[in-house]
Amino acid sequence: MKLSLPGKGAVKDSDSGKRLGDGLVCPTPFTAADRILLAHGGGGRLMHQLIEQFFLPAFGNELLAPRHDGAVFEIGGARLAMTTDSYVVQPLFFPGGDIGSLAVNGTVNDLAMCGARPLYLSAGFILEEGFPLAQLESIVASMRAAAAQAGVLLVTGDTKVVDRGKADGVFINTTGIGLLEHSLVIAPRRLQPGDQILINGDLGRHGIAIMATREGLNFETIIESDCAPLHRIVAALIDAGIDLHCLRDLTRGGLASALVELAEATSSRLAIAETAIPVREDVRGACEILGLDPLHLANEGRFLAVVPAAQAARTLEILRSEPGGETAALIGEVGAPGSSRVVMKTILGTTRIVDMLSGEQLPRIC
Amino acid sequence: MKLSLPGKGAVKDSDSGKRLGDGLVCPTPFTAADRILLAHGGGGRLMHQLIEQFFLPAFGNELLAPRHDGAVFEIGGARLAMTTDSYVVQPLFFPGGDIGSLAVNGTVNDLAMCGARPLYLSAGFILEEGFPLAQLESIVASMRAAAAQAGVLLVTGDTKVVDRGKADGVFINTTGIGLLEHSLVIAPRRLQPGDQILINGDLGRHGIAIMATREGLNFETIIESDCAPLHRIVAALIDAGIDLHCLRDLTRGGLASALVELAEATSSRLAIAETAIPVREDVRGACEILGLDPLHLANEGRFLAVVPAAQAARTLEILRSEPGGETAALIGEVGAPGSSRVVMKTILGTTRIVDMLSGEQLPRIC
Repeated sequence: MKLSLPGKGAVKDSDSGKRLGDGLVCPTPFTAADRILLAHGGGGRLMHQLIEQFFLPAFGNELLAPRHDGAVFEIGGARLAMTTDSYVVQPLFFPGGDIGSLAVNGTVNDLAMCGARPLYLSAGFILEEGFPLAQLESIVASMRAAAAQAGVLLVTGDTKVVDRGKADGVFINTTGIGLLEHSLVIAPRRLQPGDQILINGDLGRHGIAIMATREGLNFETIIESDCAPLHRIVAALIDAGIDLHCLRDLTRGGLASALVELAEATSSRLAIAETAIPVREDVRGACEILGLDPLHLANEGRFLAVVPAAQAARTLEILRSEPGGETAALIGEVGAPGSSRVVMKTILGTTRIVDMLSGEQLPRIC
Repeated sequence: MKLSLPGKGAVKDSDSGKRLGDGLVCPTPFTAADRILLAHGGGGRLMHQLIEQFFLPAFGNELLAPRHDGAVFEIGGARLAMTTDSYVVQPLFFPGGDIGSLAVNGTVNDLAMCGARPLYLSAGFILEEGFPLAQLESIVASMRAAAAQAGVLLVTGDTKVVDRGKADGVFINTTGIGLLEHSLVIAPRRLQPGDQILINGDLGRHGIAIMATREGLNFETIIESDCAPLHRIVAALIDAGIDLHCLRDLTRGGLASALVELAEATSSRLAIAETAIPVREDVRGACEILGLDPLHLANEGRFLAVVPAAQAARTLEILRSEPGGETAALIGEVGAPGSSRVVMKTILGTTRIVDMLSGEQLPRIC
């Protein structure tokens, strides 16, 4: 079938294999009927397919780090990290934060997961015509406070406005630059059999906070997002000499997606214990009412660390010493290579395979 | 009037002066009736008010360069530039380019205007549910080609999807990092009386290309966007020893906005000659039919350079030697300080003041 797009000289045949440029062939046979689904943005299986089968063949270069939260490169002898995220969360304001604090902390955390000290952020606003300036003011004040708390400077920006009905209030992109002040390589390829897997605290508060606000649910207590910057606790681990093999924040797709990504990227079997995974009682209750799995819930202040077994106890001690990290836990370990699976020993003593969802349980979580 | 936003602890009184954080007071008295207008994104007077009266007081720091296209800072002894832009152009495909080539070249050009060699780009996609994957493929192929042409690497990315009707196909944010390999300071504050003002070619093709496509206008010839990367010609000027005082690309708001911004930032009188400003006959014809002023039309491959008078002839020679730069011209000079005005000697021999519009003649031009 022929596609002819206005302004494009090339005519493409989308039923045959299609070229995305010099010598690279996209393996996904798109047809004109193929369209973007909400799940393509959900942090699950479909998003990973889009990245691996579509963006990677198009842009493929050694720095593009699909299985990491940012790119690391050297300029003038300094090791820098760069990461970008657009924020489309709905609602814009939720218990424990808003799109502004999320846009700052989310990008700060992606830099932290590269082991970088966040230095500078850019901010790009896409505003819908008619958006109340008072709300924009609130969001900008929140970004300012979050940037001050994280110790980053917002150094350049951009504002676009689109007609009413062509956006949804405000979307914010933040892109961050950070400095790696150590010689560690923090990457999936460093996983070793026997490595221990830790998380820095209880799971799922961001996901439940967004869902409760959006759906107008009232629980006994107000569950606030865990949205927080993570670079200081990462720096504390590095300063203590922990040989961090890999870090991953537990945002879209939650702990399950992060673990499955790691297992697939390294062809390793990861084993975790359900009883070891901290989930607050109110979050667990909300999950039971709503039929959700805490392992798939999004977090904005939680991450996993993979460390050598000999350093696991010290890592846990440091994680727990951080305010908000009292519930940090050792949840599992890296097993033998070859199986690319995440298996969980359940509360009942049985074993089940943990997989990622095709999309996010809840769209527009961040 | 009291504003109480969900999830925000603070209650603000928007009828009194309002605080945006530690010690900074926003001088704009917003009321709940104040809303974002399309013109706030148009590169004209209203956008400048939004930046100067709203974003700057909130984020103010010495690196935030409101009157420049990016921020310049040092890391590890290297001078780097960082710049961000979101692209919301409508239509997505137009003669001479598409949102993909625009997103790469626009950010490359903002780095070039800082005097930087572009190195790395990030790309953040906001996709509307239902957007055809074949169109996304076309756009991504176009980004790939533009990045290869400009010699930059796209090193990190992000994809978000919003529900149908909450975006407009695709929005793209690109953020760029570049390296300054010289010791020039290229900034408005370096303008001196007697400096000459040059542009690198004819004006207005991007604006007319977008408008013609959007409105379904057919001119005798198809006017193509001038969208192109500008860092090589800037590097050629620097390599030739031109002491560039200031550079500015002529995007939203066109030549008029760029000049007025410079005049206001430096409290200088800038004098230009209408007869010296190159505009192609077909663009001039389209402007006459549509009632547009070429000085306000957007460009995506045009910039102005302010240089010492003694180097103006050499600058012009270099600009004209570049493919597409054959119509480069010396269009005016920097006058005495004090008046903050742009004055133009017209074709009729009279003098008129050039001002920026309140918004863009055409919304969503980039």
